[in-house]
Order: sequence, then C-alpha cells, then structure tokens
Amino acid sequence: LAITVALDAMGGDHGLAVTVPAGLAALARRPDLRLILVGPGDRLRAALREHGGAEGPRLEVHHASQVVAMDEPPAQALRGKKDSSMRVAINLVKEGVAQACVSAGNTGALMATARFVLKTVPGIDRPAIVTTWPTMKEPVHVLDLGANVDCTPEQLLQFGIMGAILVRALEGKPEPKVALLNIGVEDIKGNTTIKQAAELMRASRLNYQGYIEGNEIYGGNVDVVVCDGFVGNVALKTSEGLAQMIVHHMKQEFSRNLYTRLAALVAMPVMRAFRRRLDHRRYNGATLVGLRGTVIKSHGSADVTAFGYAIRVAVEEVENQLPAHIARELQPMLAGA
Amino acid sequence: LAITVALDAMGGDHGLAVTVPAGLAALARRPDLRLILVGPGDRLRAALREHGGAEGPRLEVHHASQVVAMDEPPAQALRGKKDSSMRVAINLVKEGVAQACVSAGNTGALMATARFVLKTVPGIDRPAIVTTWPTMKEPVHVLDLGANVDCTPEQLLQFGIMGAILVRALEGKPEPKVALLNIGVEDIKGNTTIKQAAELMRASRLNYQGYIEGNEIYGGNVDVVVCDGFVGNVALKTSEGLAQMIVHHMKQEFSRNLYTRLAALVAMPVMRAFRRRLDHRRYNGATLVGLRGTVIKSHGSADVTAFGYAIRVAVEEVENQLPAHIARELQPMLAGA
Repeated sequence: LAITVALDAMGGDHGLAVTVPAGLAALARRPDLRLILVGPGDRLRAALREHGGAEGPRLEVHHASQVVAMDEPPAQALRGKKDSSMRVAINLVKEGVAQACVSAGNTGALMATARFVLKTVPGIDRPAIVTTWPTMKEPVHVLDLGANVDCTPEQLLQFGIMGAILVRALEGKPEPKVALLNIGVEDIKGNTTIKQAAELMRASRLNYQGYIEGNEIYGGNVDVVVCDGFVGNVALKTSEGLAQMIVHHMKQEFSRNLYTRLAALVAMPVMRAFRRRLDHRRYNGATLVGLRGTVIKSHGSADVTAFGYAIRVAVEEVENQLPAHIARELQPMLAGA
Repeated sequence: LAITVALDAMGGDHGLAVTVPAGLAALARRPDLRLILVGPGDRLRAALREHGGAEGPRLEVHHASQVVAMDEPPAQALRGKKDSSMRVAINLVKEGVAQACVSAGNTGALMATARFVLKTVPGIDRPAIVTTWPTMKEPVHVLDLGANVDCTPEQLLQFGIMGAILVRALEGKPEPKVALLNIGVEDIKGNTTIKQAAELMRASRLNYQGYIEGNEIYGGNVDVVVCDGFVGNVALKTSEGLAQMIVHHMKQEFSRNLYTRLAALVAMPVMRAFRRRLDHRRYNGATLVGLRGTVIKSHGSADVTAFGYAIRVAVEEVENQLPAHIARELQPMLAGA
C-alpha cells in the first residue's frame, strides 16, 4: 500500500535546493512512499541528477511551467498562475493522483488556491492552519495560526472540533482536551466572540477545558488550543523571536572569555541535546485543516531537515486517514454542538 | 527634592511579605525617595518591625482598612472597597500627596479604580498597559498588554503616541520608532482595524516604521510596538510560558547523568550571567499610561527583587516627569494626526 505525496518543488525561499534532497531522503526513509515532484521538468531533472536521484516508479516528475513568488498577492496567484507548481500539486490531490501535497510557498496563495481547488469540508466555513508545538509534556496542537484574521464564535468551535478530530486520528487519544486561548481564566475575561465561543464549546461534545492563557500553551496540559488566526500567528512568531533572542544572548555569554569558551565546550553535548529536543525544524509542517484533501504548509525558510519533517506530517496524516476521520466524525460533532 | 511613592502594601500574591522588604530596600538605595505604605496600620507596623524598618520622615504608614482580592471582579472592588489599600494609594496620587503609586494587586481592579479616581488625560479614550521587553538590542516598549480587549484604530494611534512620548521622556530618544504588530509586513495583511490604524499612524507625526511580526518584537529594531490588549497579553504570556519551558527542558538535560551534572557545574556561572541578563524580574513594573497620574502595576507573583524593579519604574517616571511630558506633547501629536 503506497502513500503518494505531491511536492511543490519550487516553493519556499530555497526551492529545488531544499525540496529535492528532502524528497530523496524521505524516499530512502520510507519504502512505501511515492513522491511526485511538481515544477519545471528540465530544472527538476537537473536538480535530481545533482542530488543523485532519478525518476522511477517511486519518483515522478510532473511538469508545471509557473512559480508563485513568495510575496505575490494570493488573488494574483489564483488568477494568473494556473500552471504553477503549487496549483498543480494541489490539483493532483483534487484528482486523487496524490493523497497529500506539501508546499513551502507563499502561505496566502497556498490557502487561497487550496480553498479554491479543493473546497472546504461540508460544515466548515473556512480552513484553519494547525501545527504542533513543543510543551513541558506532550506536544500541543494550536489553531488557527494565520488563515483567518477575524473569526466568529462558530468558526472557533469548528477549529476546536477539527483539532480534536486531528488529535484523535493522529495520536489515538479518545477525548482530546480542547481549550480556548484568552487573556484570563475567569468567565468575565475576553471579548464577546471569545465568550460566545466558550458557550458553544461548553455545549458541544468537545472535551472542553475552558480558557487558558498564553503561558499555559507550553504547560502541556491540553491537546488543542483554539484561537483566531491573528492571535495564533502572533503567539507563534513571538515564540520564534523569543527563542532566537535566547540563543543570541546565550551565545554571547558563552563567548565572553576563555573560561566561558571552555564551559561552552564542556556544555556542548548537553546544549546540543537540549536544542535537538526543541529544534523548531522538528515542528515544521502545518496542516491546512478543513479542506477536502490534505495540504501541508512548510515554513518558507525550511532547510532540508525541516522540509523532511513537513513531508513526514503529510505521510502521517495519510497513514492515519485524517480526511476519512474528518468526514466521519465532523457531522456528529457539529450536530452535537 | 524628594520623590514620594505610595505602595499598595497589600497587593499581590505575597502582600506585606514582599512589599515591605522591597520598600525598605528601595529606601536604602535611593536617599531622595519617600515611601507611603498603604494598608492596615497595625499589620503594616508589625511587618515593618519584622523587617527591621520603622516609620520616619522617609517612611510613612497610611492606614487603609480593606484589601482587594486578587480574583475580585473590578466593578465590585470599585463599588465596595472604597477604603482598600489599592484605592487609597491611588487617592494619594490624585491628591498630590504622592507622585506615583505601585500595586501588585488585581490588574482589572487597579485599572478600573485608577481610571475612576484619576481619569484619563484629555484626548485619550482609554489608558493602556505598557512595559519594557528585552530584545537582541535595546529594550522595546509594548502596549497595550491587556487593558483593552477590543481597540479602535484611533485608540491604537493613541497608544503609539503615548508610547513615543514615554520613550522620549524616559530614554531621551528624540524620534522613537513606532511599529504596529501584524501577521505580515505587506499592506494587505491584517484586519480592517489594523489597516486603518496604519493609515492614521502614517499620517501622524509619529516616526512610524510600518508593520512588524511577532518575532521582530525581540529584534530590537523599534522602540515601541503597538497592538490591542488581547494580542499584547497573549504575546507577553506566551513568551513567559516559552521561557519557563526552555528552563524546564534545559534543567532536565543538565540533570540527565554524571557528565551532564558536571557540565552544569562548569556552565553554571555562564548560565547565571545569562539568566541575569534576561531575568524577567528586571522587567517587572508596567505603566498604566494615559491617566492623570502615575500608576505602576507589578506582577502579582513578584518577589522582593521584582517588586523593587516596579518601584524603580515609578521613580524613573517621576524623575523624568512623564506626566508633564504627556501633558505638553500629547495635544500637538494628536492634532498632527
């Protein structure tokens, strides 16, 4: 039973230089994986040769003549780039040729194109972006991370339900704990949208845990954290920025003088183990959940390792039949709400 | 020329056990400082004796019979606790007896009481909570951090102007760089409120730098970051949570085996210097900006060191005549907008 994943080979800051070697590494890791690399045929074949790969039964090159630029307005990409590597990769999912696609391209264009081509699952107004974050305990799934800047209470409920189904499908937890991100845990905190979303969640079949504050995202006591895309995006990027700043200051302290440089040498294996544990590349690969098809967004700046993790997310969701879970479990959950 | 600061001695998770020793330490540090400790007279005097302090020309005990609970609804505190240590400390500012007050109490109650007693500065709809964050370079000032869950574009502009005046007054920078927090740097990103706020800022006398994303808060390339209170609060608390998680995982890695424990010993001076640099206690003390009077909010869980930093913020703002700066510079800035 093969899993077929289409890769937008041109997406991201590094394009072929990352997607091709990451694809070849994924094929080496997973004997049941088939990849379709989508992009300009000649450039793709050249990149394959460069990285010691070749077309074959498990590796197909699918030509697409256009590329969506990283800063291109989504509407323009949608109208003007009908043969882009991104669009064609999504088309392959729509046609059932691939079970999932992965792109490190322009998030807005990917979301707009995926919505246009694949459509949302019945009962879902808009798809959301969800990814796993490390915590003090098990990873947590946070959504939405930027697809929807303004959300209705009903949409936040839908995000909670999709998050719960995703955790159930991927991790086998029967009753994932769902919390709503707010600026306090008391009932009076937050705006009207949050309060109404809390009421909807409380009345739903979700295992709803109430409000949590930003710091508790990293506590690891819930499985799903729901917020609107503006707040989720700020929380995610603020975390990235803080982590970078911590590394920056730590490097400065460890390079201060001879003693600190020696201490750095002694501490290096520990620091390396520590960084491996929280390596953001291991958390690369966000799911565009709520679509009739599996679309995974990689960070635009992903390197080969990070893009490999995004492919892994696609494979896991296909393996665990996430779309079938959503098709089966969404309506009863929405009806119970 | 003495600076007089009123302390809500009962506020915070630890009350007198923190506020009294922190107050005594501040008096020892600053010979020109006078403190008024506000709370139940007998308990306050007992705490003073316990910590080796005594009333005198630089240390006054001001009786207040009530205490606002940390989880008390703001409206209830406002109506029912007219003789609370929090309210009386704010009254002392209103009456000109103290130039500033500091409280580690209930944020909602502090904001509501301060607004009710002191009123906002003309031209400011609602006060905001602002504090300094560490970055890769100079600290940045972020507002609002939770006073206003929903903001109009005009309010966001007011936050930007108040932030700029604050940085000018406290740091002497003539043209503080002001940025608007968004989920992308392109013009099309964000919701209507953000886009309209950007237009207002662009047309104002602010040194407006455009949008920044969450990660750039920590880059240190701007002086003021403006956002609504919901987003700011989530960004702040998410940062706190991430920092705690990083410390948690690092401790685990350093206590894994004999080698890592030895490495921890060797690296300890470096780690200590590193932690001192980013010690969140050094960033304690948020300003309720936009009021006719200086009110500083300490973190509820602040220890003696952290509460001392909140007192220091109050002293700095009095020394640099922040209220006079706001009175003088606000109207021309608002008019120029």
